[in-house]
Amino acid sequence: MAESAPMSRTPKNPDFERLVRESFAKQQAMRTLGARLARVEPGQVEIELPYRDDLTQQHGFLHAGVVTAVLDSSCGYAALSLMPPGAGVLSVEFKVNLLAPAKGELLIARGRVLRAGRTISVCQADATMRSGSDETPVATMLGTMMTVKDRSDVVG
Amino acid sequence: MAESAPMSRTPKNPDFERLVRESFAKQQAMRTLGARLARVEPGQVEIELPYRDDLTQQHGFLHAGVVTAVLDSSCGYAALSLMPPGAGVLSVEFKVNLLAPAKGELLIARGRVLRAGRTISVCQADATMRSGSDETPVATMLGTMMTVKDRSDVVG
Amino acid sequence: MAESAPMSRTPKNPDFERLVRESFAKQQAMRTLGARLARVEPGQVEIELPYRDDLTQQHGFLHAGVVTAVLDSSCGYAALSLMPPGAGVLSVEFKVNLLAPAKGELLIARGRVLRAGRTISVCQADATMRSGSDETPVATMLGTMMTVKDRSDVVG
Amino acid sequence: MAESAPMSRTPKNPDFERLVRESFAKQQAMRTLGARLARVEPGQVEIELPYRDDLTQQHGFLHAGVVTAVLDSSCGYAALSLMPPGAGVLSVEFKVNLLAPAKGELLIARGRVLRAGRTISVCQADATMRSGSDETPVATMLGTMMTVKDRSDVVG
Repeated sequence: MAESAPMSRTPKNPDFERLVRESFAKQQAMRTLGARLARVEPGQVEIELPYRDDLTQQHGFLHAGVVTAVLDSSCGYAALSLMPPGAGVLSVEFKVNLLAPAKGELLIARGRVLRAGRTISVCQADATMRSGSDETPVATMLGTMMTVKDRSDVVG
Repeated sequence: MAESAPMSRTPKNPDFERLVRESFAKQQAMRTLGARLARVEPGQVEIELPYRDDLTQQHGFLHAGVVTAVLDSSCGYAALSLMPPGAGVLSVEFKVNLLAPAKGELLIARGRVLRAGRTISVCQADATMRSGSDETPVATMLGTMMTVKDRSDVVG
Repeated sequence: MAESAPMSRTPKNPDFERLVRESFAKQQAMRTLGARLARVEPGQVEIELPYRDDLTQQHGFLHAGVVTAVLDSSCGYAALSLMPPGAGVLSVEFKVNLLAPAKGELLIARGRVLRAGRTISVCQADATMRSGSDETPVATMLGTMMTVKDRSDVVG
Repeated sequence: MAESAPMSRTPKNPDFERLVRESFAKQQAMRTLGARLARVEPGQVEIELPYRDDLTQQHGFLHAGVVTAVLDSSCGYAALSLMPPGAGVLSVEFKVNLLAPAKGELLIARGRVLRAGRTISVCQADATMRSGSDETPVATMLGTMMTVKDRSDVVG
């Protein structure tokens, strides 16, 4: 029983990687959390966040909001990578299932576009926790991103 | 057309407020984000987070992950406030709709229990942004929390 | 701790009720399931579905898909009631929490618009099961509806 | 950027396929909608539903509730296939994104277990619409299923 095949992805903006990296650099929250943008491909983005004690919930796991932050950014930038020049991206909504406690060394979020529409993009992202050579799934997101045009306060 | 009436809430743990406040104090992520626990009532919790530039996304709004963090904590502690002594709470999943850009002075998240089951609690939370005397809805969460028992690493 | 106040609702289409009722009448699935449109107000719609054995899952409760169908239609028509003339409505996504087994006499779904945007409307709906004079919450939905314009195959 | 690898699946109940097929046969809603159980493997279930005019919404697409019904059953039975003998399955919640209008000849829903816990199973399902030799993704679900024990009214 195969999964629905990913559609081929041709970026509308040849400069998509630079755009995504510049926009990510403006996300002060990512810097505060210590997240870094690892990979940017058309419709796919990978973000890493090293575990830090000061990002935990009461049991010592990374807070679900922190995990969500990197999942959301990975989805948003996966969507932005396929948008036309001049557009901005906003999260409409997302849903996250927590699969296992986020404890370990490095959180990795991989977002990808499932459907890239003119206005609405549907994205999925998986988060895993790496410890040594192990990588454990800790969360998954299914979300909706919106292409915003002609709004000077929402570009990138 | 009335909403379904909230069920009356009798806490199983008379010491629920102290438990919630002690657990919140252990959430280092809340301290890092600058969130504070405002009110704790049976099945209802309110958390506030002052706007800070270093918590924003690329357009200068509070990052959706930051908004989610306080919504999630408000839901989790609303659920914990109704759990029996010795239990711990974990987020199973949540869904967030972003309603408006989170820009302003103070983010306020109000979580409440919609259904308190033995294992599963269903919670809703609303986030508003206060600026002066205005308060604007910016996000809403619908989520599922789990009562965890007999796990020494998940208490509170 | 108050919920965020509902915004006042002025329909852009004075003929909104007729539009909603005519569109509902075209939903053959609603007729097949035996659902009826009870109330239509600006931004709020109520749908009723009498319990039938042939709509159940394996334990004799109404199937979650059936409950979702009426929740979704209540959200979609709540959103449509606030849209401008000529628009069509499509569901972008929704999330449903099941709160209790849907067993009883009459399922009632009440949808309402939380935020009516130009393109995106965010809606909530509650489903209750009525048995005699009792009414029990059985499910709740949080979803996103889209205003569709200039598509001849998506009107109403 | 690989997706998180599916875990290997060893059914706890050697008789899982018969159990799933018998339970599906009790879902009167599936019969009413004309759905059939195509494949049952450990942690994976496929359900098919031929397009019928009497299952449509106002634009002639299969109603989102109908699509959700088969997605939900595919997730529930994927989860049940990994549960121990004597257990029952209930949907806790699910989230569905609609990707394209569900118009065509045959709706196919493929559910799979992402994480099989003692109490909570997290499942994904994809729905496609087949028309001739084309198969188009129309919806995707991310949901939570619960293992129910010791309840005589919830078995299978």
